[in-house]
Amino acid sequence: MSGNRVAVFRKVTFNAAHRLYNKSWSDEQNRKVFGLCANEHYHGHNYRLDVKVIGEIDPETGYVINLDDLKRIIQEEVHNRFDHHNLNLDCPEFKDLNPTGENIVVVIYQMLRARLEAKYDLQIRLWETERNYFEYPV
Amino acid sequence: MSGNRVAVFRKVTFNAAHRLYNKSWSDEQNRKVFGLCANEHYHGHNYRLDVKVIGEIDPETGYVINLDDLKRIIQEEVHNRFDHHNLNLDCPEFKDLNPTGENIVVVIYQMLRARLEAKYDLQIRLWETERNYFEYPV
Amino acid sequence: MSGNRVAVFRKVTFNAAHRLYNKSWSDEQNRKVFGLCANEHYHGHNYRLDVKVIGEIDPETGYVINLDDLKRIIQEEVHNRFDHHNLNLDCPEFKDLNPTGENIVVVIYQMLRARLEAKYDLQIRLWETERNYFEYPV
Amino acid sequence: MSGNRVAVFRKVTFNAAHRLYNKSWSDEQNRKVFGLCANEHYHGHNYRLDVKVIGEIDPETGYVINLDDLKRIIQEEVHNRFDHHNLNLDCPEFKDLNPTGENIVVVIYQMLRARLEAKYDLQIRLWETERNYFEYPV
Amino acid sequence: MSGNRVAVFRKVTFNAAHRLYNKSWSDEQNRKVFGLCANEHYHGHNYRLDVKVIGEIDPETGYVINLDDLKRIIQEEVHNRFDHHNLNLDCPEFKDLNPTGENIVVVIYQMLRARLEAKYDLQIRLWETERNYFEYPV
Amino acid sequence: MSGNRVAVFRKVTFNAAHRLYNKSWSDEQNRKVFGLCANEHYHGHNYRLDVKVIGEIDPETGYVINLDDLKRIIQEEVHNRFDHHNLNLDCPEFKDLNPTGENIVVVIYQMLRARLEAKYDLQIRLWETERNYFEYPV
Repeated sequence: MSGNRVAVFRKVTFNAAHRLYNKSWSDEQNRKVFGLCANEHYHGHNYRLDVKVIGEIDPETGYVINLDDLKRIIQEEVHNRFDHHNLNLDCPEFKDLNPTGENIVVVIYQMLRARLEAKYDLQIRLWETERNYFEYPV
Repeated sequence: MSGNRVAVFRKVTFNAAHRLYNKSWSDEQNRKVFGLCANEHYHGHNYRLDVKVIGEIDPETGYVINLDDLKRIIQEEVHNRFDHHNLNLDCPEFKDLNPTGENIVVVIYQMLRARLEAKYDLQIRLWETERNYFEYPV
Repeated sequence: MSGNRVAVFRKVTFNAAHRLYNKSWSDEQNRKVFGLCANEHYHGHNYRLDVKVIGEIDPETGYVINLDDLKRIIQEEVHNRFDHHNLNLDCPEFKDLNPTGENIVVVIYQMLRARLEAKYDLQIRLWETERNYFEYPV
Repeated sequence: MSGNRVAVFRKVTFNAAHRLYNKSWSDEQNRKVFGLCANEHYHGHNYRLDVKVIGEIDPETGYVINLDDLKRIIQEEVHNRFDHHNLNLDCPEFKDLNPTGENIVVVIYQMLRARLEAKYDLQIRLWETERNYFEYPV
Repeated sequence: MSGNRVAVFRKVTFNAAHRLYNKSWSDEQNRKVFGLCANEHYHGHNYRLDVKVIGEIDPETGYVINLDDLKRIIQEEVHNRFDHHNLNLDCPEFKDLNPTGENIVVVIYQMLRARLEAKYDLQIRLWETERNYFEYPV
Repeated sequence: MSGNRVAVFRKVTFNAAHRLYNKSWSDEQNRKVFGLCANEHYHGHNYRLDVKVIGEIDPETGYVINLDDLKRIIQEEVHNRFDHHNLNLDCPEFKDLNPTGENIVVVIYQMLRARLEAKYDLQIRLWETERNYFEYPV
C-alpha cells in the first residue's frame, strides 16, 4: 500500500468565548448585522475541529503521519492559544479580526500549515455549533 | 483573511412522507426494484440537509454569507415546500419524478442555486436515514 | 457477577408515515392543535427505538438476554408492523388512536411486553426526531 | 392509551460564556480548584438541554403536553435569559452563584418548574460538553 | 443551590479486544450461543462509558465532585486496566468471567465504587456498540 | 434529473481486533512508534465505514445504484472477511501489511473497486474511533 496518498483526520474540541463586532461600525449597525452574536459581554461555543492531513503511506509504519505527533501540534497551536480563552480579548490573532467561523478556520489553517512538512496537504473544518460549520481551503 | 475562499455549511432537517414508484411499471416490478419503499400508503423520513456555500470572506463582516439569510432562503425553498408534506402527492416537483434521495438532492440544489448570487458555489448533501445519504454536485 | 440485575439496551430504527388527527374534531380544530402535523397527506419520520430490558445475569452465558433473541422479537413486533408503513392507514393499532409519540411508545411497550418472559422488566424510549422523544413506563 | 403516564423530552441548545470563580477565594485558590475554567476573560459552551416532562396522556390529543407550548416556555425562560449571554455578567441568577453545570441545571429546573402545571413532573439534563453533563432532580 | 443532590456524568472511551466463550462448553455450543462473538482470535470494540455520580452540591465550589478527580480515578481504574488490552488474556477480572457487556459493566462499577467516597451514589452505562449498551445498577 | 452525476453514501460498521506491529523491528522500536497499539494481545475497534459511489442517475429508477446491491457487496467483501475477526491473524490481506487505518482503507477500496462496474467512481472513509478517520482516494 506504500506510496498511496491517503487523508488522515483528527477530531478535537476546544471551548472559547467570543463576540462578533466591527469596531468601525456603530453598535446599532453591529446589532443589525450580527444579531445576538454582537452582545457586549460575549457568549461561547464548544468548537469542534476536524484536521485533515493528506500524504503518502510510509511503508515502514503504515502511517501517513503519526497521530500522536499531529495531536501534539494541534495542542500546541490550537489548544494552548484558544482553549478556555476569550478570542477577542486574549488572542492577538483576533485583535483586529472579527472571530467569525470563517476567519477562525483560516487562522487555524495558517498556524497548522506552518508546523507541517511541505509534503503534506492540509484542510481544516471548524464546527461552531452542531448546525454551522466552516471549511478551508475549499 | 478577506478574499480567502471558505466553505460555509448550514445543517437543517425536515420531515416528509414519500414512496418510490415508477408509474410505467407493474406493481410487481416496483416491488421487485424498490422493495418496502414501494409500499402503497407511503412511509417517511427525518431528512437532514447540509447546505454548503463557497465564497470569499467579506472584509467588513468576516462572513462568506450571513447565515440568517441562508437560513431564510432554505426555509422558503425547502421547508415551505416539503416539510410535513407528502413528496409524491403534495409537491409538483415529484409529480413525474421518483422521489429517491438522488432526485431530491438535485431538485433542492436547483431551487437553492436559483436563489443564491452567482458568486457563490453550492453543494447539497441530503441524509435520508443515518446510513444512506446523497450529494450533488459531485 | 451472576444474579446481579443489569439493564440491557438495544437501539433500532424504523421509517413510517403518519399524521396527527382527531376524527371528532373539525379540520380547523385539528390544524389549531396539531399544526403541520395534521397535514392531510401525511409526513414521516425515521423513528429510533431504545428497548431496555432489565433482568439478572445468567451465570452460564453472562447475558441478561441474548440480544439476537431480542432483535428477532423487535423485528417481528415492531418492524413487520410499522416499518415502511403508514401508521394511520396500515396499522390497526392506530385506527382509532392518534399516532402521537406518546401513544406509539405505549403501543410498542405492550407488544414487546407480551413477548418477554415475566422475569424481565421493560422500558421503551421512542425518538420521533432528534429533538423530541418519549419514554414509557416512567 | 389515555391515562398512561409517559415522559416527553424536548432537546434544545443555547450558547453562553462563563467562568468558574469563588469571589471569597484568592486567584491562586481559584486556579487550583477550577483550572482553566477560572480564566479571567471567560470561555464558553454550546449548552445542550434535555427537558423531561412526565404526565398522563390526554385522551383527546394523545399528548402529555403540546411540545409547541413547552418549546415556548423554554424559549422564554432559558433562551431569553441565557442564550448568547455571559452567565456571570448578564444573568442575576449567577451574580452570587458559581455557574457550574450543577448550579445551572438546578436554576433551570426552578425556572421551568414555576411555569409548568403541578400535575407534571420535571427533570432537566444539561450538557456542558460532549463528555460532561448534569441531571436534576436525581 | 448548595445541598441539592445532582447527578454528574463523565463520558470516556477505551478500546479493547475480547471474545465470548464458556470454557465448560464445547466449541459447537459456544458458537451456537455466542455466534461470531465466539470467534477464536478475538474481535474488539470502542467501548464508551458513562459514569454517573450523584451527590450534594458543595456550596464553596458549586461542584458535586471535581471532574478532574473523577477523570483521574477512571483513568487509573478503567483505562490502565483495559484500554488497548485483550480482556480475556490480559485482565485477571475476566480470567473466569465471560466478558459480556453485562459482566464488564458490573466489574467497572465495583472498581469505581471502591474508589469513591460513600456519600456518592454511582451508576455505570457501558456502550459496546452504537446499538447495544448496558447499565448497572438498575 | 436523469444523467446528473450524484454521490450515494452507505454507512456500515464492523467490529475487529488488531495490533500495529512491524515484524522487522524490535519490540522496543514497535512500542516507541506504535505505543499501546503495539500491545501483544491485540485490542479492537468498532470500525465505521462510509462507502461513496458516484454515478449518473438512472432515469427509470431514480437510483445511481440500488443500495440493496451495494449493501450486499459490502457484506460479502468487508463483513464476511473482517467482522468479528482478528485482522492480523485471520485476514491474509494483513499477513504482511500493518493494519493501520491508512492500510485498511486502501485494502477495502481495492476490494470494493473490483466489484463495482467501471462507470462508478468510488471513495472510502474509515473511522477507527470517533476521533480518528481515514479516506481514500484523496
